[in-house]
Amino acid sequence: MPKIIVIGSLAYDSIYTPSGAAERALGGSSNYFSLSASMYSKVGVVGVIGEDYHASDIDMLKERGVDVSGIKREKGKTFHWAGRYEGDLNEAQTLTTELNVFESFKPTLPDGFRDAEYVFLANIDPVLQMSVLEQVKKPKLVAMDTMNFWISSKLSDLKSVLKKVDVLLINEGEAKILTKEANAIAASYKLIELGPKAVVIKRGEYGFVLFYDKHYFILPAYPISKVVDPTGAGDTFAGGFIGYLAKSGSGLDLETLKRACVQGCLMASFTVQDFSVRALLNLTEAQVEKRFKEYMKVVTVS
Amino acid sequence: MPKIIVIGSLAYDSIYTPSGAAERALGGSSNYFSLSASMYSKVGVVGVIGEDYHASDIDMLKERGVDVSGIKREKGKTFHWAGRYEGDLNEAQTLTTELNVFESFKPTLPDGFRDAEYVFLANIDPVLQMSVLEQVKKPKLVAMDTMNFWISSKLSDLKSVLKKVDVLLINEGEAKILTKEANAIAASYKLIELGPKAVVIKRGEYGFVLFYDKHYFILPAYPISKVVDPTGAGDTFAGGFIGYLAKSGSGLDLETLKRACVQGCLMASFTVQDFSVRALLNLTEAQVEKRFKEYMKVVTVS
Repeated sequence: MPKIIVIGSLAYDSIYTPSGAAERALGGSSNYFSLSASMYSKVGVVGVIGEDYHASDIDMLKERGVDVSGIKREKGKTFHWAGRYEGDLNEAQTLTTELNVFESFKPTLPDGFRDAEYVFLANIDPVLQMSVLEQVKKPKLVAMDTMNFWISSKLSDLKSVLKKVDVLLINEGEAKILTKEANAIAASYKLIELGPKAVVIKRGEYGFVLFYDKHYFILPAYPISKVVDPTGAGDTFAGGFIGYLAKSGSGLDLETLKRACVQGCLMASFTVQDFSVRALLNLTEAQVEKRFKEYMKVVTVS
Repeated sequence: MPKIIVIGSLAYDSIYTPSGAAERALGGSSNYFSLSASMYSKVGVVGVIGEDYHASDIDMLKERGVDVSGIKREKGKTFHWAGRYEGDLNEAQTLTTELNVFESFKPTLPDGFRDAEYVFLANIDPVLQMSVLEQVKKPKLVAMDTMNFWISSKLSDLKSVLKKVDVLLINEGEAKILTKEANAIAASYKLIELGPKAVVIKRGEYGFVLFYDKHYFILPAYPISKVVDPTGAGDTFAGGFIGYLAKSGSGLDLETLKRACVQGCLMASFTVQDFSVRALLNLTEAQVEKRFKEYMKVVTVS
């Protein structure tokens, strides 16, 4: 039985960055999240794929011990996103979003999934996020992500979900849009007022801001001199974050949340070094451990 | 005799931010730097003021133990800068720059200043920076700042100074312009190739990147929910940085440079909380020590 479940997209992405392009490469929040979180604990995926989704991409998750029994194959095409990054690669320009099979998706959790202790509601329609939340029995910790599209189109549904989660993980730009604050610290106060007990603002190369129980924990990203493709960095962060929490067995605890953020940041630093999920595919625990030590040196004053 | 000397501007600034305005308020890199560095060590200022400069603004520096014998009063008006900040306050839009007495300034160091051990060449004409450098005898450490204006108008002079300094402190945006790199980490490599042994990239609310001897040290700024006026934050950072180095008596040493960056960041966090130099005027060592402890909590994982 998976300790962690995630609901999010399984997708093919077409991505253009100053380093090159990846056409119809494996993507989607659930793939990034699962590859990251499965380094720490057992993950189950809830999602939908189309007829064109490669069996080998499902096998890849299975090889990482991921429970794929919550993935439904439907008639039609898999979710497809195309985007372009320029300059400092901090923001993607969306070229195409084809929801395809995702358009009519109604998530149903396999029985084993209802007992999941850790739930990640990736960046999807808040109505689907709520539907998953209603199907889990008694999770120890629920985290969610969201984006500007849902902030502008389904704010009321989004606010209902926010009231029910423990942790909100959100991009800095979207945190500012949601709170109408130009300052990330001021935004974090307002986000807490919306319901979540902890907020993690993701800042790309600038790392993250954790705000919990009136305490801040802020660190930069691990220094990467060449970001090839930032797609999926946020979901990879969420995977390291929730994965670490699940491995530790903790609920909301400041020191554990801090260490979980560090693991999230660490995992995301690999993702951005290659297109698609490539950098995560062959990642070993030894590589993660090595970079963890390097990262600690970068942010520690003796 | 001052242990540290600074060459930079003594100015009146007119500043407009979302929090309000300050008209012809005290500013200039030397004022911010001196108020910050004098918390740590004895500072001497080299600069020029006009007939309109208030004697009380000189007295204010004297009260902080600053040696003002290097400040010349000339006929004409004091340097005046006007700027506006909007949105996230990360970048100022310059409305006016009136060089006034600065236009024909030729710095001459008083005798006591030539033995200074620490030299800060604030963001002024690289020709003036070089002139000061030629007048100091055998400094232990020289640091400099610069900006886009000199990068575009006096690149060759700027590069000559870069070859002679130990530390370059530079804004992230300007580091990217100077190196033509979109990534701060890649930029730091290229900056080192220009001559300085250590580079500190200042990132506003995102803190700083220190690159020295192939090591990175990166931290965010102390979290401030309301930035009133970011003017002078970089010079205040430089003041805390050089001040700490001078107090410690160190030259280039990784651990000392790290701690110096922390002090720089700390001092800058006060400056941005009020207009002009106001927040620095009554700052006590106890307040700095208190915030240092808070800052360490924000960036430390146990």
